[in-house]
Amino acid sequence: MNLSPADFDLFKQLDELCYPESVAVVGASENLLKWGSFLMVSLLAGDFKGPIYPINPKAKSVLGVKAYPSLLECPGSIDLVFITVPQPLVLDVIRECEEKKVKSVVVITSGYSEVGGEGSKFEEELVAAVKKAGMRMIGPNTMGMISTHQNLFCTGSNALPPKGGISMISQSGNLGAQVVMWAEEQNVGINKFFGTGNEGDVSCTDLMLYLANDESTNAILAYLEGVDEGQRFLQAARMAAERKPVILLKSGRTDAGAKAAASHTGALSGSFEIFKGAMRQAGVILVPQPMDLIDGAACNYLPMPKGHNVCVVTLGGGWGVVASDLCNEYGLKLPDLPPDAIAQLDTILPSFWSRQNPVDLVGQIDPALYAKALEIVVASEQFDAVITLGLIGSSSLVSDTVSNAHRVAPESINEQMMMQMKAISDGFEESIHKDIARLTRQYGKPIINVSLDKRPHKLISNLGNGDYLVIFNTPEKVVRVLAGMVYYQKWRKSVGLPMM
Amino acid sequence: MNLSPADFDLFKQLDELCYPESVAVVGASENLLKWGSFLMVSLLAGDFKGPIYPINPKAKSVLGVKAYPSLLECPGSIDLVFITVPQPLVLDVIRECEEKKVKSVVVITSGYSEVGGEGSKFEEELVAAVKKAGMRMIGPNTMGMISTHQNLFCTGSNALPPKGGISMISQSGNLGAQVVMWAEEQNVGINKFFGTGNEGDVSCTDLMLYLANDESTNAILAYLEGVDEGQRFLQAARMAAERKPVILLKSGRTDAGAKAAASHTGALSGSFEIFKGAMRQAGVILVPQPMDLIDGAACNYLPMPKGHNVCVVTLGGGWGVVASDLCNEYGLKLPDLPPDAIAQLDTILPSFWSRQNPVDLVGQIDPALYAKALEIVVASEQFDAVITLGLIGSSSLVSDTVSNAHRVAPESINEQMMMQMKAISDGFEESIHKDIARLTRQYGKPIINVSLDKRPHKLISNLGNGDYLVIFNTPEKVVRVLAGMVYYQKWRKSVGLPMM
Repeated sequence: MNLSPADFDLFKQLDELCYPESVAVVGASENLLKWGSFLMVSLLAGDFKGPIYPINPKAKSVLGVKAYPSLLECPGSIDLVFITVPQPLVLDVIRECEEKKVKSVVVITSGYSEVGGEGSKFEEELVAAVKKAGMRMIGPNTMGMISTHQNLFCTGSNALPPKGGISMISQSGNLGAQVVMWAEEQNVGINKFFGTGNEGDVSCTDLMLYLANDESTNAILAYLEGVDEGQRFLQAARMAAERKPVILLKSGRTDAGAKAAASHTGALSGSFEIFKGAMRQAGVILVPQPMDLIDGAACNYLPMPKGHNVCVVTLGGGWGVVASDLCNEYGLKLPDLPPDAIAQLDTILPSFWSRQNPVDLVGQIDPALYAKALEIVVASEQFDAVITLGLIGSSSLVSDTVSNAHRVAPESINEQMMMQMKAISDGFEESIHKDIARLTRQYGKPIINVSLDKRPHKLISNLGNGDYLVIFNTPEKVVRVLAGMVYYQKWRKSVGLPMM
Repeated sequence: MNLSPADFDLFKQLDELCYPESVAVVGASENLLKWGSFLMVSLLAGDFKGPIYPINPKAKSVLGVKAYPSLLECPGSIDLVFITVPQPLVLDVIRECEEKKVKSVVVITSGYSEVGGEGSKFEEELVAAVKKAGMRMIGPNTMGMISTHQNLFCTGSNALPPKGGISMISQSGNLGAQVVMWAEEQNVGINKFFGTGNEGDVSCTDLMLYLANDESTNAILAYLEGVDEGQRFLQAARMAAERKPVILLKSGRTDAGAKAAASHTGALSGSFEIFKGAMRQAGVILVPQPMDLIDGAACNYLPMPKGHNVCVVTLGGGWGVVASDLCNEYGLKLPDLPPDAIAQLDTILPSFWSRQNPVDLVGQIDPALYAKALEIVVASEQFDAVITLGLIGSSSLVSDTVSNAHRVAPESINEQMMMQMKAISDGFEESIHKDIARLTRQYGKPIINVSLDKRPHKLISNLGNGDYLVIFNTPEKVVRVLAGMVYYQKWRKSVGLPMM
């Protein structure tokens, strides 16, 4: 698509929204059951660098920050205002914003078009007032937004995800909140997050176009219930997909879902089959489950595969069989090992190894052997990607055994022995982590890992120096994520774009 | 099927295997990288009550337990022997077992039919020797077994799952190990676990028949690559399904998987379509992914639904829409709320609530309201099951906010206030947990929960007094599990069995 001058205006306005130098919270409160406190705590805990003005006519200060009775009495200029006063008071706040020359507002307050009836009229009035003020608005009825590189965390869920390259658009507050909380929990780096609410002004299409053109966003996650501007959204999504992976969960796919969506945000879902076809043409990776969004974020931490040929390297046979089935079911291929790879593996594996893909390391616990076997298959032109099963986490089994041994037989395995063996075990683990990161960098191919550990691993491990490991806890997830990446690369090729 | 005298002999022999009064480990070791130590540590950590005899010709004791140079020199009788010496030494051990009148052996040692060539011959010799000795054998090439009610934990992975009613058969050691480790991690109670290895003697069919007739087993999980005795397995699975849910992951479903399975255990997979049809006729719940096995274990902690009509009760709209789609896609129905339920909900929810299924509680944080809303829909004849989204874990958001508030504004929210609010928040959480357990018991319908918490919950929470909560971290899992339960109940009805 060709961008219009209006689009560039939009980008400038949304940059102002995402990189404010000062913010206010109208309705700020110390009552920790109210949104006015959630937002304040979130802003303060996220360490926003500019002035924060709590607006509350009855408080001298809110959470240790000097409060003001109205926006008009704040000493400095204010770029962005979060509004969480009751609906009948919002229009007055918007008028104060206009007078104060505020650039953007995020309206948390609900009671607008989502409740039907008079709510729709209130929303029309709100939108008109915002336009008259020359501002842009997220909401109403939104759960907030995040712009990590501005240290701007302002949502109801108090999520403080790490900084990174992934941005998200969500038409549901609670689903968006959950994904951002998972991101925090799983070490997935977030750039921007928008709960779009009722989209009275800024729409999901506006945001898709903005993020397509936002150079600090490397991948886009989206949860959508319905899209008003079908053709423009399609163009925006296509423009985004040309530049970065777009992973989208569309709900309202079924009658029951569409009915629920209509009552939730008033979204008209339309035919999912038509939407699906359009999105696939646009290069969007469609996923069916909420957890797929955060899993898919892993693609931002890996080189993209150049094709669908996968080698599975497994510590044990069963996982290999399961992963083979799943690869097949998701369109990934497991070609045979080429003769030279077999010959090289023959020199390091026991004589009875299967000489097949999956490469079964038959239970050896030896990180040097893992690294050698991995390098042989990663280096092979036969393979575009490698899945490891149980290489990561296997030494934790040793560590658990050692702890139990010390507990049940402290005279045989004394504390010093236990600590020594745990150190060796930790060293094994660290060694294979480093080797996987090195091989990923060296060969530019994705190596995605499934841990055999009892304890869940974080999805993303930051090894420093720009090296990351992607670790899932079960093979179905790695196969789905890899299949999405392969689909995306094939789409790029099919429309004449260079593969990533 | 009609059980034969041989079947009853089998049950008696397998009871002897699962409830031994004394065990030996041939190849016991203090080298914590060897199987001989894994097994000893596992037995000791699991607190096996009878005598444990480590057999090691060079050691006076192993992990603090007096060792013996051979089985024949052990003072008492030995019911069950675990063997982990190198393959060429195993036959001698079997002969000693015969002389010592051992009842059962578990052969961990590999190098048999799974490696092909001479290995198959070695296995024939091993099986012949075991038969001649009048023993039953699990293995060779197995990763061990567990019988929790005998405190018998003896696997390579050191898993110590809690005691419970779920038994598992696994044709893969590492997959079985992983499921049992997940069970430990997720509080899922296990009864028996068998890694079947090469099934030289006792087969997965034998074990299915045994577990079908084992009154302490309430549900069966199985991972299978291939089944030799097709017709007998079908009968055994059917007999099991008539008495308890059977959840089965079959690998080798695709060409790639079948090829990997053939090289892993030598299993011939046959047509998955035929197997699938036969299993569905037999009432088996087939699942495609390893994690589905442990998720499916949740059915052991819930009343079974009498039909497919589900009510979704959600703290926020988006999750409700997503769950509606997933229910629809998995064959579950979301009927409308009946008028009397709407009238009752009208009295407790804000006027703008949607009056639809999903019931959107529009973000209220109030456990008393949750309990009332839940009881209204659980009590309704319209619904067979209830899914809650975000009711559990929602108070943790408050708790997180309070912690952050104290950190960023300790003078406004002092430690005492923080502790008080956390106590209130914990009280909220405890209250809704108890209410869900009470309603489940009172109405005999499954209530399955998805937590909105940042931190993953355990799948099973034991509230005491026989009350358990089932908590997933994402709606797709609860929908898949519930769909499996509904399928099973429909099968029972279709074959004239009473629903559970």
